[in-house]
Amino acid sequence: MSAANQQPAPGVNRQILLAARPVGMPKESDFKLVDSTVPHPASGEALVRALYLSVDPYMRGRIGAHASYAKNIDPGEVMIGGVVGRVTESNDPRLSAGDVVEGMLGWQEYAVASAKSLRKIDPASVPISTALYVLGMPGLTAYFGLLDICKPQPGETVVVSAAAGGVGSLVGQIARIKRCRAVGVAGSNGKIRFITGELGYDGGFNYRDTPDYHAKLKELCPNGIDIYFDNVGGEITDAAIRLLNTRGRISVCGQVSEYNAEEPQMGPRWMGQLVVKQARAEGFLVHQFADRFEDGLKQLAAWLREKRIKYREDVVEGLENAPQAFIGMLRGENIGKRLVKVAE
Amino acid sequence: MSAANQQPAPGVNRQILLAARPVGMPKESDFKLVDSTVPHPASGEALVRALYLSVDPYMRGRIGAHASYAKNIDPGEVMIGGVVGRVTESNDPRLSAGDVVEGMLGWQEYAVASAKSLRKIDPASVPISTALYVLGMPGLTAYFGLLDICKPQPGETVVVSAAAGGVGSLVGQIARIKRCRAVGVAGSNGKIRFITGELGYDGGFNYRDTPDYHAKLKELCPNGIDIYFDNVGGEITDAAIRLLNTRGRISVCGQVSEYNAEEPQMGPRWMGQLVVKQARAEGFLVHQFADRFEDGLKQLAAWLREKRIKYREDVVEGLENAPQAFIGMLRGENIGKRLVKVAE
Repeated sequence: MSAANQQPAPGVNRQILLAARPVGMPKESDFKLVDSTVPHPASGEALVRALYLSVDPYMRGRIGAHASYAKNIDPGEVMIGGVVGRVTESNDPRLSAGDVVEGMLGWQEYAVASAKSLRKIDPASVPISTALYVLGMPGLTAYFGLLDICKPQPGETVVVSAAAGGVGSLVGQIARIKRCRAVGVAGSNGKIRFITGELGYDGGFNYRDTPDYHAKLKELCPNGIDIYFDNVGGEITDAAIRLLNTRGRISVCGQVSEYNAEEPQMGPRWMGQLVVKQARAEGFLVHQFADRFEDGLKQLAAWLREKRIKYREDVVEGLENAPQAFIGMLRGENIGKRLVKVAE
Repeated sequence: MSAANQQPAPGVNRQILLAARPVGMPKESDFKLVDSTVPHPASGEALVRALYLSVDPYMRGRIGAHASYAKNIDPGEVMIGGVVGRVTESNDPRLSAGDVVEGMLGWQEYAVASAKSLRKIDPASVPISTALYVLGMPGLTAYFGLLDICKPQPGETVVVSAAAGGVGSLVGQIARIKRCRAVGVAGSNGKIRFITGELGYDGGFNYRDTPDYHAKLKELCPNGIDIYFDNVGGEITDAAIRLLNTRGRISVCGQVSEYNAEEPQMGPRWMGQLVVKQARAEGFLVHQFADRFEDGLKQLAAWLREKRIKYREDVVEGLENAPQAFIGMLRGENIGKRLVKVAE
């Protein structure tokens, strides 16, 4: 078999490596598709064939030159990422060939991992790809980032940036479940139709065709903003902070507007706003809630079953298209959660 | 009696009014000394003769053009401020002539106030001026702003800006009581000698002769910064945030570097730092802890008695010098808490 038909030869493991640290917005040439050998699981390990992989904003930080919250990926290493796959060989009693699992297996067709690092998925109860979205990291990020960091109260107004993305599409729905008013900011009219039409957001605006974010937010949030769930930073955040109510809370999940910046970004200083508003801005990483993931997943699964949470996937086909899918996601192409389908 | 000898005529109440909203740093001409008539207390009220009045950074916000957390003082109104004084006439059973009380009575020699808004001070147990400092708003601000907002743990490093001022001089001492390492930033070598010599701060630096705040803080905080108690904002804050540890906390008490700015100040965006550090910045106003003031004062009084808290007052004599005392405090003239002595 040749590489041209994009099918793996038996025993061949196609992988995407980081080729170079991106400068600014990543380019396809920052990544490299290589053939390696399918590894064998040692004792306690399993070999997993990837079915879906996730592309997420946090990955930009992990391939950058600056220290992040975890070890950065170096050029030559396999790109990191969450994967849903099927066990093809197991050397651990907890898993059997055929099991569907989720884990941080990276951008590759096959990976070995310790059985205890893999989460078993029941393909009969939910579509397996939800393990990378509603019932995975994005879901847990939305859940704990909104509920734990901000403690929303009925009647409060919650503003969400990147509201049509993997995390943002869920935050507004959880806010609505908690009887809050949810207002979303996103980058296209289609995204705004999606969040207000399908997801039940109470309002939203397309920042790309809105000249004055502050005026627009003020119009959409007549009682001010109690909670701002921030995925983007920059000028949308500046506008939201100005409208924050007394005892307002900002859950700082991401700052995607800065991820591709090579220079520190400047903006208005707003620490003084926190004082007069007795307000709080708190950053978080989802793994800080790891000991409660099970509770979160149980609640998210219940809401999904009850159809109180809806979702939309934006699926790109083919491992080889993962870099392009990732770059497009950073540009805001996707409506809903972007995934890459690696195999049936 | 003439106005020239600065003694009040009987029945005359000297007051300092706001004459004009300051533009930038306040000037003496923004204030006006006037004679009015000593008022009479109605039922439930007492008449108080001022002995000490407090000048504090928060007052700059309250005389500015921008909305603050409370109603701004308008030109023509008596300047606000905490006062310790003696009751000269009482129309309420809770107070008697001769009692020493503390209350928000403003920059004037005499004021009437409802008896329930006045806090009785025992002049036998503590110097009465401490009711405006260690056992008053600055003490409570340091106490709740450090302990409640930041929850310091033994061995943590606490950095305090404006460390030689009313609030800052206490924060470092409370941090030390909680077995933290305390590092202070202040604006003169004399202040640094004061905080490290008299108050027991573990280290500190004079930002006016330090070219690189980040390098200096790094040297003084070899284990990074766990808690930053911010009174000033601006570049000192930028440097502290860069050194914040994982799960670091910023208690935002004031932003004195911005109070006289007419334009919004710009600086590096640091919301992304909160994410990677899972850190929190929280603004507060001391009155949010009002239902626990009694507990706070009891603890502060105990520490004062045990000489675990030391203090220094910077006393300016004469009501007529209050504007100058206030402006000087905003410029950072004072070491310790600046007060104005109005009468013996």
